[in-house]
Amino acid sequence: MLPEKKISTAVIKRLPRYYRYLGDLLENDVVRISSKELSERMKVTASQIRQDLNNFGGFGQQGYGYNVEHLYKEIGKILGLENKYNVIIIGAGNLGQALANYTDFEKRGFIVKGLFDVNPRLVGVEIRGLEIKDIDEIENFVIENNIHIAALTLPKQKAPKVASDLVKAGIKGIWNFAPIDLNLPKDVVVENVHLLDSLMTLSYTISRKEKKKKQQK
Amino acid sequence: MLPEKKISTAVIKRLPRYYRYLGDLLENDVVRISSKELSERMKVTASQIRQDLNNFGGFGQQGYGYNVEHLYKEIGKILGLENKYNVIIIGAGNLGQALANYTDFEKRGFIVKGLFDVNPRLVGVEIRGLEIKDIDEIENFVIENNIHIAALTLPKQKAPKVASDLVKAGIKGIWNFAPIDLNLPKDVVVENVHLLDSLMTLSYTISRKEKKKKQQK
Repeated sequence: MLPEKKISTAVIKRLPRYYRYLGDLLENDVVRISSKELSERMKVTASQIRQDLNNFGGFGQQGYGYNVEHLYKEIGKILGLENKYNVIIIGAGNLGQALANYTDFEKRGFIVKGLFDVNPRLVGVEIRGLEIKDIDEIENFVIENNIHIAALTLPKQKAPKVASDLVKAGIKGIWNFAPIDLNLPKDVVVENVHLLDSLMTLSYTISRKEKKKKQQK
Repeated sequence: MLPEKKISTAVIKRLPRYYRYLGDLLENDVVRISSKELSERMKVTASQIRQDLNNFGGFGQQGYGYNVEHLYKEIGKILGLENKYNVIIIGAGNLGQALANYTDFEKRGFIVKGLFDVNPRLVGVEIRGLEIKDIDEIENFVIENNIHIAALTLPKQKAPKVASDLVKAGIKGIWNFAPIDLNLPKDVVVENVHLLDSLMTLSYTISRKEKKKKQQK
């Protein structure tokens, strides 16, 4: 591995997809795969795969292809999945509860340690054995429980204040579902999931296709 | 507008963000904004904004900047938001229910018309006035109710079969939350939200930063 090399965002964004495909292959007891086969499944060129993996030293063997389990584990390491991450979810509405119930996260080492909400009717309610706590307790909780990641599933008005409290408490990453961009210090990693943006991208492409169809008539 | 011009994916992905910022400005009664101000808020260069908007004919006026409401509406049109979209959600678990309860979608013209599940315990349950239906009824429902978009919030094993049923019924877009890539005919638009991929990108960046910190010590 060459940790000093600057890896492009595009490559990084593709890594989880490699990991997912390799995980599926493993589940189906596939031991090895050629870059050609992998490329056909993933619908990217074999040379793209080789280039991407070469960023991390490359893992293929001429004439053999890739050992699925080895490559899966190596990409897992690159993705930082050999670590466990303690996660809290802030905003215990439907989306927050959905994330808390998503068992696949735990399988990959993302362990939900706490749920928080401002709504007094939700505080005290149990979700998967976790009691929803009052949002005022966040800072202490993050420090005492060594929380690495906070998922923000709360209204956009509340997100900036909560995010800055989290930064004070030493959070490392924020998984932001609130429809707002957070301006945080550079050492805090923010990954956005803007659902409405995604839905608008879909509507853009649909409406473009419809316009084209009409023009062709 | 120049509908024939090929717009890059990067530009398209930025449009919902413009729309979001302009919507926030409108909410705060801002009537006009210079490209400089907009660029400072959005943390992209003013020339990037001009370039992006020039793809659609440009909307600024020298010395005036942008009329917020006009630009908001125009970008909304480009995004296809002058249309209403009938949406169904397939998989009425936590995430499906969260989407059904998300009122912001409806404000933008995405109207949830139905929820479906395979689980007989969920069938008949009401969410926001919508009765969860059996997944076998999907094809007829799509045709009879002129459904444009289906959100797939179901396990990956079930997603390909359901997606192909939806294509047969004439669906235009699939908003796919299942952790699998769907191979569908080109005239069906697929927009993926792979939550675990997003979380892994976050863990990648966190672990990289931690490694660097250690190296610097």
